[in-house]
Amino acid sequence: MKVDRFLNHQIDPLFMDEIGREFARRFRDDRVTKVLTAESSGIAPAVMTGLHLGVPVVIARKKKSVTMTDELYTEKVFSFTKKSEYELSVSKKFLSADDRVLIIDDFLANGQAAGALVKITGKSGASLAGIGIVIEKSFQEGGNLLRKQGFRVESLAKIESLAGGVIHFADTKREVYAR
Amino acid sequence: MKVDRFLNHQIDPLFMDEIGREFARRFRDDRVTKVLTAESSGIAPAVMTGLHLGVPVVIARKKKSVTMTDELYTEKVFSFTKKSEYELSVSKKFLSADDRVLIIDDFLANGQAAGALVKITGKSGASLAGIGIVIEKSFQEGGNLLRKQGFRVESLAKIESLAGGVIHFADTKREVYAR
Repeated sequence: MKVDRFLNHQIDPLFMDEIGREFARRFRDDRVTKVLTAESSGIAPAVMTGLHLGVPVVIARKKKSVTMTDELYTEKVFSFTKKSEYELSVSKKFLSADDRVLIIDDFLANGQAAGALVKITGKSGASLAGIGIVIEKSFQEGGNLLRKQGFRVESLAKIESLAGGVIHFADTKREVYAR
Repeated sequence: MKVDRFLNHQIDPLFMDEIGREFARRFRDDRVTKVLTAESSGIAPAVMTGLHLGVPVVIARKKKSVTMTDELYTEKVFSFTKKSEYELSVSKKFLSADDRVLIIDDFLANGQAAGALVKITGKSGASLAGIGIVIEKSFQEGGNLLRKQGFRVESLAKIESLAGGVIHFADTKREVYAR
């Protein structure tokens, strides 16, 4: 499934603005203080969500850069797409026990990246308002694993199957979340 | 100089929105059809600029991913911050001779990344409206090299010196561009 025309390689900013508006609407009453995402394809939906909620966006980085020498929260992630392991890191100064975090990402499949962001949130002592996903591949295990742990996962589109080259969407209106 | 509190590691989306609005204002009459940036710290200002101009944003990627098999425009970049070379790639389907490109990036120092984006634009046959930079370190050579080539470079903040640990800003209102 290729989404590079509007979601990651090329971005439609007006569509991304609507995505941010919708996430903000769903978590409006949840006292979110920080949006957390992972570079780089989560940045656009996360920044638009932060814009509509009026809160800062923290971007977990894939590599420790030379200029990032603070103490870090770090978690390993295995990427099935890229077939390699990497680390996500967040400076300790940007997440604390006073924060309430909304995790935003473009895709949820195996839940590796979202799971790492959940662990980073836990390590910081912050509470987790939930996880907002643009496209969930619900035929993969990530979403269910996160919901079974009691996390609120809000996916704007859920794809049940790619069988025969056809995208089958779930009826998201009838979805029931484990909270 | 650390800007990770508002510009890259943690982002202030409302400030980023203002940055996008200002770039859009400066290039409003320039018939821009695409904003072009490099992952990952250019994404937020580029998406906000695209939002205010109402045009798509193309993100040059640092690695060829497994799912990106199209023909690519590719340029090498040497990062002085990370002390390593990497490649920036853009799928050929997102830039063509019909496009007029506005390059947006967070920083301009040696001009390595911006220079690669200029070359990618040239390879595609698109015309270049200009280059919008959030923070230019004008004591480094990148900005002058680009202006000497005749490109319009618009920097929202220009830092002339970091001597003695003090940030000295240029008076950007008195700037004269080579067009």
